[in-house]
Amino acid sequence: VKHATEDLTFETPNRRDYVNITPQVDEVVRRSGIQHGLVLVNPMHITAAVYVNDDEGGLIADIDDWLERLAPHEPTSQYRHNNGEDNADADLKRQLMAHQVVLPMLPRRRATRPRPVGASVLRRVRRPRRKRVVVKAIGE
Amino acid sequence: VKHATEDLTFETPNRRDYVNITPQVDEVVRRSGIQHGLVLVNPMHITAAVYVNDDEGGLIADIDDWLERLAPHEPTSQYRHNNGEDNADADLKRQLMAHQVVLPMLPRRRATRPRPVGASVLRRVRRPRRKRVVVKAIGE
Amino acid sequence: VKHATEDLTFETPNRRDYVNITPQVDEVVRRSGIQHGLVLVNPMHITAAVYVNDDEGGLIADIDDWLERLAPHEPTSQYRHNNGEDNADADLKRQLMAHQVVLPMLPRRRATRPRPVGASVLRRVRRPRRKRVVVKAIGE
Repeated sequence: VKHATEDLTFETPNRRDYVNITPQVDEVVRRSGIQHGLVLVNPMHITAAVYVNDDEGGLIADIDDWLERLAPHEPTSQYRHNNGEDNADADLKRQLMAHQVVLPMLPRRRATRPRPVGASVLRRVRRPRRKRVVVKAIGE
Repeated sequence: VKHATEDLTFETPNRRDYVNITPQVDEVVRRSGIQHGLVLVNPMHITAAVYVNDDEGGLIADIDDWLERLAPHEPTSQYRHNNGEDNADADLKRQLMAHQVVLPMLPRRRATRPRPVGASVLRRVRRPRRKRVVVKAIGE
Repeated sequence: VKHATEDLTFETPNRRDYVNITPQVDEVVRRSGIQHGLVLVNPMHITAAVYVNDDEGGLIADIDDWLERLAPHEPTSQYRHNNGEDNADADLKRQLMAHQVVLPMLPRRRATRPRPVGASVLRRVRRPRRKRVVVKAIGE
């Protein structure tokens, strides 16, 4: 069985950022030489998500509004987890986005087509910081 | 490592349809000859979902009502993604249903028991069309 | 390809319980001897969930309140699935928590670090009963 693992790193300056990571995932799959298998795309942070959808501005704005409606940031006092922090809503928003994605690797097709992968990085703290996503492919 | 891939195709005439795909997934697993492994069931459409639950009419009606309550179709003008289309709610509903499912393949047990797989096909357009689901098994 | 499968069993006395299953998942991974691969953590019940987050009391209380807000238990008459039972809300709450988790197995790192696995066991019936979670590792 062949396997390949790579860490992707992203800078996410805002409280919530949506980063298209499809090109990087495709590149890991291509380099792995695996024709048939599964690829897992998994963020290494509990308030980050990976999901599959188009990288389209209107759609991302709709998703962002919807996350805020179902798991509002304010009032921060409504959350018991906001103890010295103010980001308890990020844990709930992430539940709505799914944590990790598993995709089929198929020959004669780019791994992530027609399934673009967007990383919804729901940030835990205000200050900009790096986010890490593990891509793990297994197969033959 | 053994692997097997099959495409399942479904006709979904309505805006939202719930199709029990457990028999087809079981059949792919059986044909694969794999005893120990993982099986991924992944729709090839961004507004389709695969989830695990009973194929029971009351439950499906409850789920459908709940999706409409948390991500309503109307007014369509509330969504920026509704630009020439009217289905932005389908992307949000799909987030609530999960995109793909990974199941354990175990010997002496049908792959998907006791976990029936239902495909929630949240349709992007009004006119009937075919939906495709990839089943990918890997193991030995 | 190496594989390992173990069943974990938990007693969940309350209507909803949150059990930290990270130590047991780590132990299965350790015993498997697999260095590179994927591990699936999958509950064998349709109203149970496995998710990834911290085992922190305030966070769990926030999640529990939020589940009740988005998929309320009362009035039970609102659900058509409540036909002799009163737990239709558990199926909806589970949709919000995700059914199963797939994690990367990486050398020189504990399988589930930094990703603690909590099992949200959303119970179908009132009386205490055992819940089963399958852990399936595959790789080499």
